[in-house]
Amino acid sequence: MYTLWIANKNYSSWSLRPWILLKALDIPFNEQQCYFENNKSSYEKFKAFSPTGLVPCLIDGKTTVWDSLAIVEYLAEEYAQVWPSEKTARAWARSAAAEMHAGFMTLRQTCPMNCAVRKELDEMTPALQHDIARIDALWTEGLTQFGGEWLAGDKFTAVDAFYAPVVFRAQTYGLKFSALSQGWIDRMLKHPAMVEWLASAITEPEIVHE
Amino acid sequence: MYTLWIANKNYSSWSLRPWILLKALDIPFNEQQCYFENNKSSYEKFKAFSPTGLVPCLIDGKTTVWDSLAIVEYLAEEYAQVWPSEKTARAWARSAAAEMHAGFMTLRQTCPMNCAVRKELDEMTPALQHDIARIDALWTEGLTQFGGEWLAGDKFTAVDAFYAPVVFRAQTYGLKFSALSQGWIDRMLKHPAMVEWLASAITEPEIVHE
Repeated sequence: MYTLWIANKNYSSWSLRPWILLKALDIPFNEQQCYFENNKSSYEKFKAFSPTGLVPCLIDGKTTVWDSLAIVEYLAEEYAQVWPSEKTARAWARSAAAEMHAGFMTLRQTCPMNCAVRKELDEMTPALQHDIARIDALWTEGLTQFGGEWLAGDKFTAVDAFYAPVVFRAQTYGLKFSALSQGWIDRMLKHPAMVEWLASAITEPEIVHE
Repeated sequence: MYTLWIANKNYSSWSLRPWILLKALDIPFNEQQCYFENNKSSYEKFKAFSPTGLVPCLIDGKTTVWDSLAIVEYLAEEYAQVWPSEKTARAWARSAAAEMHAGFMTLRQTCPMNCAVRKELDEMTPALQHDIARIDALWTEGLTQFGGEWLAGDKFTAVDAFYAPVVFRAQTYGLKFSALSQGWIDRMLKHPAMVEWLASAITEPEIVHE
């Protein structure tokens, strides 16, 4: 069985992505957690199981897959439902997931995932507004073009998983999206896997200061 | 036929990745170039063909694939040689490519790709040393574990393409690597596709200041 190493559910947006995908698709896995700590780099601790000292990290027998997007493609080789079945939707979903993988730095830095709390934004900067507007346009495009309840059609796929942390960020910081995008956020917040993650996140005793 | 939008060959490391892969695998494509300019954002100009205002961007009929890693996976659906044929090597190659896609920020920011020039590093910081050491360890692992001339075996695959810009950076800034890694750098610099890219890059008249 797969083993998925993750960090704090409250904070680790990268851990959430493959975790929620595995749960949403009912793919069995062992969960292993290693926590971020205050005033201490997690690098050496995480190096024990991850070659980069980062999470998430998937172990499958003797094979280690050490990046969220590589994990998704590794799973996709065994489980076709990881990506949309239609080629155009799959190309769109992969582009959108990869855009998140390498981008949206301002959103990621100024609105770190922190599932348990609600707080006001310090400031809506033009760079943050640019990131949010781009995400809103992207979600709107997917929901319109593929016409389903999920970003790339009528099934939850890896592109929904890749934007799952933005759902918790929207909730924490009160970020505003279009009605169509907000509909997807609402569906995501009701998804059993998201409910399960959030329930664990808010009961974690570890508090890590920004 | 595919159309690949790229920016200046001298500077655009992200453009190089899918371009070199297509060339190395003899996959036919139309090349379209749109240049970065001095003191001017390229965002609006690039938005004409790319939804993010970024390059590279692959057009295949009515389908737009707007991220380097998504382009690679899109190509891999048609051309199995994009990734190593052996499952463990493929998982390793995908992890290594994804690590570059989202990481090595210090190297990318302090040693921007600039194929035509040779310059000394301002300063070898601990963060830059960390990035270089990690890349060296990764290359060494691939070259040792899979035992070929290329990073994940005996064939040039997408992981070689993803680290191609580091080859030009090593040359520009005189970055030091282990003998095994330097052997791969030397092979890359002799690869016909790298030779072709470099020949075009150094004759581009556009100079963009950092």
